[in-house]
Amino acid sequence: MGMTITQKILARHCHKEFVEPGELIMADVDLALANDITGPVSIEEFKKAGGKKVFDRGKIALIPDHFAPNKDIKSAELCKTLRDFAREQQIVHYYEVGRMGVEHALLPEQGIVLPGDLVVGADSHTCTYGALGAFSTGVGSTDLAFAMMTGKCWFKVPETIKFIYHGKLNPWVTGKDLILYTIGDIGVDGALYKAMEFTGDALKSLTMDERFTMSNMAIEAGGKNGIMEADNITIEYVKARAKRDYEIFKSDDDAKYCQVIDYDVSKIEPQIALPHLPENTVGVSKVGDISIDQVVIGSCTNGRLEDMRTAAKVIKGHRVHPDVRLIVIPATQEVYRQMIIEGIMEIFLESGAAVSTPTCGPCLGGYMGILAKGERAVSTTNRNFVGRMGHPESEIYLASPAVAAASAIKGRIAHPEEVAKI
Amino acid sequence: MGMTITQKILARHCHKEFVEPGELIMADVDLALANDITGPVSIEEFKKAGGKKVFDRGKIALIPDHFAPNKDIKSAELCKTLRDFAREQQIVHYYEVGRMGVEHALLPEQGIVLPGDLVVGADSHTCTYGALGAFSTGVGSTDLAFAMMTGKCWFKVPETIKFIYHGKLNPWVTGKDLILYTIGDIGVDGALYKAMEFTGDALKSLTMDERFTMSNMAIEAGGKNGIMEADNITIEYVKARAKRDYEIFKSDDDAKYCQVIDYDVSKIEPQIALPHLPENTVGVSKVGDISIDQVVIGSCTNGRLEDMRTAAKVIKGHRVHPDVRLIVIPATQEVYRQMIIEGIMEIFLESGAAVSTPTCGPCLGGYMGILAKGERAVSTTNRNFVGRMGHPESEIYLASPAVAAASAIKGRIAHPEEVAKI
Repeated sequence: MGMTITQKILARHCHKEFVEPGELIMADVDLALANDITGPVSIEEFKKAGGKKVFDRGKIALIPDHFAPNKDIKSAELCKTLRDFAREQQIVHYYEVGRMGVEHALLPEQGIVLPGDLVVGADSHTCTYGALGAFSTGVGSTDLAFAMMTGKCWFKVPETIKFIYHGKLNPWVTGKDLILYTIGDIGVDGALYKAMEFTGDALKSLTMDERFTMSNMAIEAGGKNGIMEADNITIEYVKARAKRDYEIFKSDDDAKYCQVIDYDVSKIEPQIALPHLPENTVGVSKVGDISIDQVVIGSCTNGRLEDMRTAAKVIKGHRVHPDVRLIVIPATQEVYRQMIIEGIMEIFLESGAAVSTPTCGPCLGGYMGILAKGERAVSTTNRNFVGRMGHPESEIYLASPAVAAASAIKGRIAHPEEVAKI
Repeated sequence: MGMTITQKILARHCHKEFVEPGELIMADVDLALANDITGPVSIEEFKKAGGKKVFDRGKIALIPDHFAPNKDIKSAELCKTLRDFAREQQIVHYYEVGRMGVEHALLPEQGIVLPGDLVVGADSHTCTYGALGAFSTGVGSTDLAFAMMTGKCWFKVPETIKFIYHGKLNPWVTGKDLILYTIGDIGVDGALYKAMEFTGDALKSLTMDERFTMSNMAIEAGGKNGIMEADNITIEYVKARAKRDYEIFKSDDDAKYCQVIDYDVSKIEPQIALPHLPENTVGVSKVGDISIDQVVIGSCTNGRLEDMRTAAKVIKGHRVHPDVRLIVIPATQEVYRQMIIEGIMEIFLESGAAVSTPTCGPCLGGYMGILAKGERAVSTTNRNFVGRMGHPESEIYLASPAVAAASAIKGRIAHPEEVAKI
């Protein structure tokens, strides 16, 4: 019997010819990742368990991005714990403030995650790297401590749901809209502990950055991972970055799927996830007149260069609505720099946007744009749970960078075509 | 008997020919200023006192800069209070996130404060505008509420200390070094409730931005204000910005000073204020080997374009020391934009600096670079009090942008000439 791409990567990493869904395996990890929130917990577990040296100082990434640059004394202490451990263990992939970015944007950008890799991270959006054709998933801090010590992690091989996106994308419909639509369709537990395999002709035209967005939000449907086969676009992206070998896996024709879901993307318009769950999606034309106070463009979901390019295309020549704060957060220093080179930064500044240094910031209610009681935000981030971005009585509407940008101009949720031509 | 420039401005604003030190007066204010920390308190007082309408919606400035973009729910609520009041009262000079900057950098830059003005602000560094030849001083939130209602504020006319700076400035010695040296000489209460009048040939060569730095820190010697006569450089600065008339005042030759202090600036090297008081100043050559964890270049003291130019000159071609986080915070959106245009942003990014959107941030322990226990920062800000930038056991060393930049490269407190040529 054939295997899916997910099975194949897992099989390879536990040195087996075949693994089947439901099987418990102990697999080698190519990279173990933690940030300034989860890292200190993992480090404590590592030390409690008698850990002296990490299994491979080149296969661990520690990235202070959640509340860094340090939000307060507590986050300063957490970042210090991470930094001290990185120095003591001579961790190769430790990225200091000013030389870093949001973890899930930074690692692919720097060629640290590659196709065929098995990556675990003490952060739920570790599933992002599936877009490269890697198996990656979020784990608890204790599992991560174990991985840091041994280079291994246990898994139950997931069943796979195959998603087929076919048809022609409508103008302004992006990877973000496809994944929001998908979550809206199957619900926030629609893929619980399942591999989500994204396929279909419609994906071929998506940029790498749009693909990262799709894989990133697999967890919002409960997915264990969200994976795509590497194609020419993937290879183009990777070859400029890879400093080591990698392997491209593809699902067998006779691979077994627990479910196959097919979408005609020509029927999909830009999507909005209404408060307070990512599954509450509707087409932007059906939202009605929702005035807003803030727009956030950034995060591991939509803070990459393509996202900034798209938002800038919408915003160019317009001013942010006087009642709206537009907060733009490039996900990495490299994105930030590229925005300057391409003139995108200028477009944002002239529009009246605040551009932050890379950070997770407001996405998880950290800082850099927290909402007051009753305030509403359109955000390109991944979660719109109650109080996620501030006050429990605030509201988050998830959307693509294009929709977010248009909404910032209009002062209400808006379709990009209301302010720009594609 | 003659009057000092401070007396003259106060006299003009209480419609008298002459005021003398010690006299209590009720004066008209040209601008009443508050931020997201103090504004909400003033607004509450304003309402408690039965305030319905502000005295002049064009003469009030409300600027969310301290913990904005919103650091947390509490700051979000404070900013909302400020914003709601600004909308309700149709305040002309309300500046939203993305269209703003640190208050004391923004107001002169936008031509809102002009020579001869009388400005009160519910922020101690309101004294900054003295560099323009304006009388400006920090007041309590209740006094500010009164000013917002009536357009008036009471003052005790201060005595004036005259500071004369003569001689030729050494390389890399800036306005920041002169004011640090001065505070070191007279102490943090050396000018308590006195007007500090800065004069002398050595000031003629200072840029407007360096002059703002000097006036800004008058309060760190206890000064009521820190004023300079407007000269050609002032007029050059103002004429590009002023949208209304202004008046230039000069001290009479027979004005009475309570003290005259003379400095030969050729004897002054770049200064460092050691923890935990701005008066603990020493020449950088006498500091010894002090390793550091963080450098902050920004704030109402040193976040202006000249500061960024100077820091960039030092940093160009160098990398930030691996053990140091360099956090650069342009004080206004205009500074930020100009940094891009001049290529300064690129220099910072290539060096490994994090560049923040304008905010007061770490200066007052807000966010964007808070220190953990035992950490040391070199900072271009104005106060190095215990715990000001984070943990009570952290340390702040105040310095100029040039010294801060050099220290970021070296990983220890360093003289700019160690890394760059003037």
